[in-house]
Amino acid sequence: MIYFRNDYSTGAHPAVLEALVRENSVRSPGYGCDPLCETAADTIRALCAAPVADVHFLVGGTQVNATAIAAFLRPYEAVIAAESGHVCVHEAGAIEHGGHKVIACPTPNGKLTPEILNAVCAAHSTEHMVAPRLVYISNTTEVGTVYRLEELRRLRAACDQLGLLLYCDGARLGAAITAEGSDAGFADYAAVCDAFTIGGTKNGLLFGEALVIANPALQPAFRFYMKQQGAVLAKGWLLGVQFSALLKDDLYLKLAAVSNRMAAILAKGLVELGMPPRFTPESNMIFLALPKETAKALESSVAFEYQGDLDQSTVCIRLVAGWYNTEEDVAALLALLKETQL
Amino acid sequence: MIYFRNDYSTGAHPAVLEALVRENSVRSPGYGCDPLCETAADTIRALCAAPVADVHFLVGGTQVNATAIAAFLRPYEAVIAAESGHVCVHEAGAIEHGGHKVIACPTPNGKLTPEILNAVCAAHSTEHMVAPRLVYISNTTEVGTVYRLEELRRLRAACDQLGLLLYCDGARLGAAITAEGSDAGFADYAAVCDAFTIGGTKNGLLFGEALVIANPALQPAFRFYMKQQGAVLAKGWLLGVQFSALLKDDLYLKLAAVSNRMAAILAKGLVELGMPPRFTPESNMIFLALPKETAKALESSVAFEYQGDLDQSTVCIRLVAGWYNTEEDVAALLALLKETQL
Amino acid sequence: MIYFRNDYSTGAHPAVLEALVRENSVRSPGYGCDPLCETAADTIRALCAAPVADVHFLVGGTQVNATAIAAFLRPYEAVIAAESGHVCVHEAGAIEHGGHKVIACPTPNGKLTPEILNAVCAAHSTEHMVAPRLVYISNTTEVGTVYRLEELRRLRAACDQLGLLLYCDGARLGAAITAEGSDAGFADYAAVCDAFTIGGTKNGLLFGEALVIANPALQPAFRFYMKQQGAVLAKGWLLGVQFSALLKDDLYLKLAAVSNRMAAILAKGLVELGMPPRFTPESNMIFLALPKETAKALESSVAFEYQGDLDQSTVCIRLVAGWYNTEEDVAALLALLKETQL
Amino acid sequence: MIYFRNDYSTGAHPAVLEALVRENSVRSPGYGCDPLCETAADTIRALCAAPVADVHFLVGGTQVNATAIAAFLRPYEAVIAAESGHVCVHEAGAIEHGGHKVIACPTPNGKLTPEILNAVCAAHSTEHMVAPRLVYISNTTEVGTVYRLEELRRLRAACDQLGLLLYCDGARLGAAITAEGSDAGFADYAAVCDAFTIGGTKNGLLFGEALVIANPALQPAFRFYMKQQGAVLAKGWLLGVQFSALLKDDLYLKLAAVSNRMAAILAKGLVELGMPPRFTPESNMIFLALPKETAKALESSVAFEYQGDLDQSTVCIRLVAGWYNTEEDVAALLALLKETQL
Repeated sequence: MIYFRNDYSTGAHPAVLEALVRENSVRSPGYGCDPLCETAADTIRALCAAPVADVHFLVGGTQVNATAIAAFLRPYEAVIAAESGHVCVHEAGAIEHGGHKVIACPTPNGKLTPEILNAVCAAHSTEHMVAPRLVYISNTTEVGTVYRLEELRRLRAACDQLGLLLYCDGARLGAAITAEGSDAGFADYAAVCDAFTIGGTKNGLLFGEALVIANPALQPAFRFYMKQQGAVLAKGWLLGVQFSALLKDDLYLKLAAVSNRMAAILAKGLVELGMPPRFTPESNMIFLALPKETAKALESSVAFEYQGDLDQSTVCIRLVAGWYNTEEDVAALLALLKETQL
Repeated sequence: MIYFRNDYSTGAHPAVLEALVRENSVRSPGYGCDPLCETAADTIRALCAAPVADVHFLVGGTQVNATAIAAFLRPYEAVIAAESGHVCVHEAGAIEHGGHKVIACPTPNGKLTPEILNAVCAAHSTEHMVAPRLVYISNTTEVGTVYRLEELRRLRAACDQLGLLLYCDGARLGAAITAEGSDAGFADYAAVCDAFTIGGTKNGLLFGEALVIANPALQPAFRFYMKQQGAVLAKGWLLGVQFSALLKDDLYLKLAAVSNRMAAILAKGLVELGMPPRFTPESNMIFLALPKETAKALESSVAFEYQGDLDQSTVCIRLVAGWYNTEEDVAALLALLKETQL
Repeated sequence: MIYFRNDYSTGAHPAVLEALVRENSVRSPGYGCDPLCETAADTIRALCAAPVADVHFLVGGTQVNATAIAAFLRPYEAVIAAESGHVCVHEAGAIEHGGHKVIACPTPNGKLTPEILNAVCAAHSTEHMVAPRLVYISNTTEVGTVYRLEELRRLRAACDQLGLLLYCDGARLGAAITAEGSDAGFADYAAVCDAFTIGGTKNGLLFGEALVIANPALQPAFRFYMKQQGAVLAKGWLLGVQFSALLKDDLYLKLAAVSNRMAAILAKGLVELGMPPRFTPESNMIFLALPKETAKALESSVAFEYQGDLDQSTVCIRLVAGWYNTEEDVAALLALLKETQL
Repeated sequence: MIYFRNDYSTGAHPAVLEALVRENSVRSPGYGCDPLCETAADTIRALCAAPVADVHFLVGGTQVNATAIAAFLRPYEAVIAAESGHVCVHEAGAIEHGGHKVIACPTPNGKLTPEILNAVCAAHSTEHMVAPRLVYISNTTEVGTVYRLEELRRLRAACDQLGLLLYCDGARLGAAITAEGSDAGFADYAAVCDAFTIGGTKNGLLFGEALVIANPALQPAFRFYMKQQGAVLAKGWLLGVQFSALLKDDLYLKLAAVSNRMAAILAKGLVELGMPPRFTPESNMIFLALPKETAKALESSVAFEYQGDLDQSTVCIRLVAGWYNTEEDVAALLALLKETQL
């Protein structure tokens, strides 16, 4: 089986695993109040050039999004997100379960713009409607596109003007930072966003997302929210250990760069096969239109995900490259796809 | 001031007020557990030919929608509604506050169709997404259009096929039933919907919406939900008295017919003025495109609502006829509008 | 039937009803944004010597408590209340439904004390527990006792020291203010509480509770919370009209004084019958221990409420005097009770 | 530092860690839909003699309690728990955040009884109050006591009679099963409870709680609730692997027996020192009254938890033995305590 189903199909990077094994018999205080988490948080603050940021470590992506939004918003305040945003689609209504409306905005490429934010705010004028308050973006986006620094700065300016918070879901932040032509680094996210996450699950960890709360006004009482959401890990040091190992010697960005490179090779190969991907691939995800029977036939040898029908005979599939994929995986997949054309 | 701002701009119909005065000094048990509510509920069951329906009386529209949806859905289940639906827009996120996602569907005319329901259900396939469960329609819709019986039956059939509940917000049910060409009566709503409301606030009462729960599976424990939502009125008999008075001698439908007739006269006059309404008016609401300065000029003599900008120089306004409007009101408004053209 | 079941067993005081009839055909803006509500709010601000207080009018008691607590607290913050408090017992979990724990404190007489507040705060020390934040008291309490001004001031001082908000449910505020020996008036509540309610439902209105938010920090966005809770009445002016009529010429306090006086006469008669009430009656509620068969026998001629078994053969009943009760009602009840002793 | 702070102060048992390392580079489907989880679930079904039980793996204790209660209850339904219960005290209001009241019952020993359940249900009679529905017990309890099989069966019978669900938080289920004189095994829990958890975090895993849903009526849609609570682990197979290793060759019970034995030796030593523990120790937790200065002095060499003041000069501390504690740890602690007496 060739695995391009997602970027979290396997365990931890060896360096991370090794660190876990090394610290396994240390005795630590619980709940993330331990020196290992403190060290990892310091590393992140330094990386982000954000000495007063709060850093919290949570287990998963839906969990961190739901907890952060619960903490940052008042009940009548709403989230603005692209229609393709993870909080809109794939969190089983976790944000609404927490009481907040997600205002879903159609976009051609998974990206919000200042124009969209202006239109949403203009349309929400009275207490009979929710009050838009937090702008949720993902970088990379759920369709594999990447916000550039200039775009992020324009969103920030719009947020300032409209009284909005800017939150970036960085489940694939490494892929965004290392995307070809990308010009925004950790410190830019800390400067531009009120809060953002550095996703570990999809880039080398067993599990773990680091939440960086750059805006001091959003920092108080955050651990209460975590606990209330069941998001305080008893052995919280597991997260600190992993992040420290992952952030050492730029491993985080190196792994992400591998994912992006594998996807780029795949994309190039697809074009050569006359099967150009649907969105212009910018990071580690490729969306491909296939005849339904072709997709069906691939199932036995390739792990991928279906993204819905494009028409009666065509389906869209998603191929995601992970840090553990190799050029051999890509070549094998391209060979298989070539065969389907014969 | 000529009042076309909405259909709840004044108090109760005299017959309703008289009943309230008459019963004022009676001593009654609290919380709607009284003979006056029981009588009104019996009247509604008879009107609806629904002897096993449960009937509850609540104070307001957002309240009854939020309470019913809280009672009918499990936390992971979602509402399907037209993008223009009241629960999508004008309830300040009350449904999401209760934990449920509202899947907002674009429509040209405020009406859902079986095709829309099929598409929504097809797109929601796993536990990573919410599970669509309740179809929220309003009749009349928020843009003044009216579902006909055949449309309601097709929605019911789709709901049966897809495992969905059908809920109709009848804040303006009288206007829907008495709309020109309308062919669905109370009993049809009870037959087609799992639950629906009969709106009193906009059609002759001081306040009050009757919720008819036709589906026995949705009936248990409803009063717990009401109490938890703060929706049990201490002197609940106030609702029973008002509804009994309103439903006597067809007063409810007669009042709605007046609203519809006033709007029809207005619409006809607008066409004659060369100012055709935006949607084809079917009930008691008229949407009109006006130059911004014209609208502004009208403000001093006409009460109406703004509905947003159509373009830089044009705005959409809403004119709603109530049971208390007269042909004189309509004539006065048309005269004013005619003046604006000079 | 002799009615002592509660103090909301009948409609409005004639002066209130008359005002409603008088204003019935006026055309008003919706949702409480009207001159009638503004006038009533001004009256209340003046009565309370609180010129910067916000005043909102809601329909019912559970509704106003749930809305205020939703607005005043963050999700991890909790309410401190006497175990007998309305929010603990008789609101069907509305506060918890809104996400907040209610810390129920046993008390001998329904009253919280600084000592209780200190103990609760001392016991809640980390983010593994909720953070106590709002002190909920009722005056009169649910067992008919009355906080005196000195007690209220001591609670306020404790709240200041502990960083707590003080909220008073004044569903029976009139009875508290006019209780024998009571020394706290409207202005004292505004000075001592962050927010409190002036209950109309139990003292002369068809329905209505006025919420006075004295603390400016709690004022922003309150109408969003109201709307989200379904607590914005479409014809909000109904509340303004009623409150204006009720507060005119001290009618509110006069009615409450009648209730208290009727209860006092009843209490005196009970003592003479050798049936002393359970708590020392201070306001308009009397709790009485009766043999179960006696209580059962009374049911056919007296409306009252059961309060639970005291032992296998004895039950506690509650008798509440309303502004509409007369000395004849009291005499009739005492005569009946005397008969049961023969 | 001698560690008796809790039973989750270190990493995984070596056998568990080894399994994690072994499976680290396997490619698996995400979200717990993988063969490793299926195998672990089968093992648990077999252990519990519950072939139709559903087994779900979650990361932490508060998370599993909150998710299960969200799934099992309707909004107006409440939890009954001992006042010392984890859901009452140490989950930061997670259950109330989910909308449910927890009815906290005082107990002398952390255990609920049929008498308590009867009293709670008798006191909750109308829709003005919540409806008690789920009985939350912990075994071992939070004060280290252990329900025996006969006690569990009596609770079950009471639940059947009262229409209640029985849920057992087994964060320390191993300690309960292996407690001296304990007579309830896995299969008994499956027979007696509607659902219960098998806690891994405190007994050999890095993290993980297995939820066994024995009652088929509670099984549908559970994964929706998990996802909505952010409780679906992306690499869910991490939980399956760990549980399989932990349940092999009775390792789970063996580890728990070690914890209990260490606590028993400690308890015996304390009695010999004339410092008898507060509750009769039955499992791996010891509660000890100490002069405040003694406790303070211990802090530098022993890791323990404070449990609150007993009086002005005395404090209660908690000492918990883990599977990784040794007789040397116990001897060292006793020696230190003896010194404090000199």
